[in-house]
Amino acid sequence: MNSIADTSMVNAYIPGKTQLSGGDSELIARRDRLLGPAYRLMYETPIHVVRGEGVWLYDNTGRAYLDVYNNVTSIGHCHPHVVEAVSRQLATLSTNTRYLHETILNYAEKLLATFPQELGHVMFTCTGSEANDLALRIAKTYTGGTGIIVTETAYHGITDCVSQFSPSLGPSVNLGQHVRTVPAPNLYRSDGADVGETFAVNVRSAIKDMLRHGIQPAVLIVDTLFTSDGVLSDPPGFLAGAVEAIREAGGIFIADEVQPGFARTGSHMWGFQRHGLTPDIVTLGKPMGNGHPIAGVVVKPEVVEEFGRRARYFNTFGGNTVSCTAGLAVLEVIEKEGLKDNAREVGSYLHSSLEGLSKRHPSIGNVRGAGLFLGVEMVRNSGTREPDREITARVVNGMREKGVLISACGIDHNVLKVRPPLIFSRANADTFLNAMDKVLSEV
Amino acid sequence: MNSIADTSMVNAYIPGKTQLSGGDSELIARRDRLLGPAYRLMYETPIHVVRGEGVWLYDNTGRAYLDVYNNVTSIGHCHPHVVEAVSRQLATLSTNTRYLHETILNYAEKLLATFPQELGHVMFTCTGSEANDLALRIAKTYTGGTGIIVTETAYHGITDCVSQFSPSLGPSVNLGQHVRTVPAPNLYRSDGADVGETFAVNVRSAIKDMLRHGIQPAVLIVDTLFTSDGVLSDPPGFLAGAVEAIREAGGIFIADEVQPGFARTGSHMWGFQRHGLTPDIVTLGKPMGNGHPIAGVVVKPEVVEEFGRRARYFNTFGGNTVSCTAGLAVLEVIEKEGLKDNAREVGSYLHSSLEGLSKRHPSIGNVRGAGLFLGVEMVRNSGTREPDREITARVVNGMREKGVLISACGIDHNVLKVRPPLIFSRANADTFLNAMDKVLSEV
Repeated sequence: MNSIADTSMVNAYIPGKTQLSGGDSELIARRDRLLGPAYRLMYETPIHVVRGEGVWLYDNTGRAYLDVYNNVTSIGHCHPHVVEAVSRQLATLSTNTRYLHETILNYAEKLLATFPQELGHVMFTCTGSEANDLALRIAKTYTGGTGIIVTETAYHGITDCVSQFSPSLGPSVNLGQHVRTVPAPNLYRSDGADVGETFAVNVRSAIKDMLRHGIQPAVLIVDTLFTSDGVLSDPPGFLAGAVEAIREAGGIFIADEVQPGFARTGSHMWGFQRHGLTPDIVTLGKPMGNGHPIAGVVVKPEVVEEFGRRARYFNTFGGNTVSCTAGLAVLEVIEKEGLKDNAREVGSYLHSSLEGLSKRHPSIGNVRGAGLFLGVEMVRNSGTREPDREITARVVNGMREKGVLISACGIDHNVLKVRPPLIFSRANADTFLNAMDKVLSEV
Repeated sequence: MNSIADTSMVNAYIPGKTQLSGGDSELIARRDRLLGPAYRLMYETPIHVVRGEGVWLYDNTGRAYLDVYNNVTSIGHCHPHVVEAVSRQLATLSTNTRYLHETILNYAEKLLATFPQELGHVMFTCTGSEANDLALRIAKTYTGGTGIIVTETAYHGITDCVSQFSPSLGPSVNLGQHVRTVPAPNLYRSDGADVGETFAVNVRSAIKDMLRHGIQPAVLIVDTLFTSDGVLSDPPGFLAGAVEAIREAGGIFIADEVQPGFARTGSHMWGFQRHGLTPDIVTLGKPMGNGHPIAGVVVKPEVVEEFGRRARYFNTFGGNTVSCTAGLAVLEVIEKEGLKDNAREVGSYLHSSLEGLSKRHPSIGNVRGAGLFLGVEMVRNSGTREPDREITARVVNGMREKGVLISACGIDHNVLKVRPPLIFSRANADTFLNAMDKVLSEV
């Protein structure tokens, strides 16, 4: 068990730590026996879920949990429009991209319309890991380089290639020799320095080091909300200098939108738009099909031209008729239900209310984020800003006991990850805030 | 366009070669504009599919095609039991493996029961590529080596790691420096030599070469029906010597069952069982969810122990509640409808009927395979056995014109790939055989 290095699992279940029901103990024993040692459960007391609806998850005893964490089902659990569209397509035709079919084209058209015009092609995979893996293959072909720059606690996926530039997997998963990490741009801990400038200087330094090792730079890839690094959102625009640096060195910039994408930031459809720039490749995943396994790569035509000339790309399930139906239905719901606006409005309310809470709870050192993706940094002392990992874990588990689901992230495992479905209402926000207030008073 | 190197696309659409309807031309122009240059279409005249049912696909004009090719929808297009189970689960709960849920365990139990007892754990991914990628990560951790041995025209997937040991992707996708290829064991071209012995000798030679380069062998991985190499099935048991060789060198044996698995071979649930051995890892994919993106890795507990201790494995969509529901429904159908027996019986009828056809059509040099996965090798002359790539392409496209879908594979692109859904009936087989007879008379 590698829970210390494993930032996203600061709140993982630890066998024997809590008293479980007989049924849950039995399920966990079956998991260990059948699935083996590499799987983890969330929370000190795991949840046995049986049903989801909108912002709610229900356990086997009928207890409701307010879901302030799952960004895969980002338009709400079991959204009827998606369920209906996918079920209809499942009963009609499920097949691959080697036949002509209209849905993949209708979906591609609608999806690409949300991007700057320079990003002209989309390719479909099944997972965000596959999307980042494909993006790397394309980038290596286009640039002729192999060097990759990521932030210190980045997570981009779990294929052999992508795990080599996902430092948040922990020290037992070695980074590739062609990979360099740089500190994430953290305004809260910048002491007044220009975080964009600092980030660009660090990227330039990593490029120099690479070249000195004979490694040609290929890629700067970042999650545009730096969600594994602790949700680093501000000031908007801080990415520009670093992107300029990688391009000057012959590399390209990949925006990993697996977490921030699909209207979550409230102000825009995509996180990179907050930074006023156009990436060379954008990768998509998690919320793309509201739970259906669909992900993708959006790319400038000139960047993928050589790759397409030299190699075909066929992903058996990627871009299949059912997946594209799910993706199309999600875009329709985001549009029809005005979820970008909702993310902005409820997100802003949540943000200011959490700042209000921080006045009475000094363990809240900083509140940040965009739209409905907020990070709440927990510290021992707001003056020294010393990270408080223990209180973070206690808040996450305390919230779970009160029926509210959140998690934690960041290099010091001390940032609460607040990431509800985009349909989250002000009333839902109040439920969450009341629980936070109580838990913070108790811990 | 790299159609020469690209064995699975010997019959790909080539722009301008055939006259298309205005609607299809427009769809193809939209594909090029939206999806870019890396996608391919099947057949000289691509098919615009709109509906599938059982063994049939229907195009936009209402024309029916007998599907003798798609092994993803292996229990039949839009099987009502799967459609119903998946639709119900979609409307109930779609979430991940970090919560407790019974379906993943019920499915894992039922799936593992089809394997030898030593293969005790299963881990879930979304695609066969991800399964082989994960298998390699596990194998490298377990063996401490990196060397990989594959056959000359093998296909194992498209991640950066897996494409490096998928030579069938063609010469523009470089193999890894730690990869060695060996000739596939081909009884038809063995001139009386023991193919198992020859294969083992070649694997031993590859191991020696690796060691001489300072590369520690990690893995021998084969598709147990050698489907990309041209469907090489006989004699059952020929794998034993090669597997012994890799184990003696400290490596492990991975059986890639993405194509032969799930009862297709008729005699067994898994292709490796025809060879009377137990792999260290087995990878699963394509037919696992009858179209739903689900794949997996089945592994001996001792092989994954160190990997699980050092690294967690979390795949956002892998093993989710909906995917496992699809997988479980597929196993139920295979069992209830006796599809293994059907694959054996109809496969045997198809096999002997094709051999019958070869008496009248000397371009059929060899018929081989197992159950409902047959290879028909096309030659210019049955004495010289000179591969006939042209006639192969003409048969595939001629069959498509007659409303029957097949494809081709093999190092010389001259083996017809006959791979219908497992529900294929004798009457379906007769339809296929009549069309073959006519097309062979015409070409």
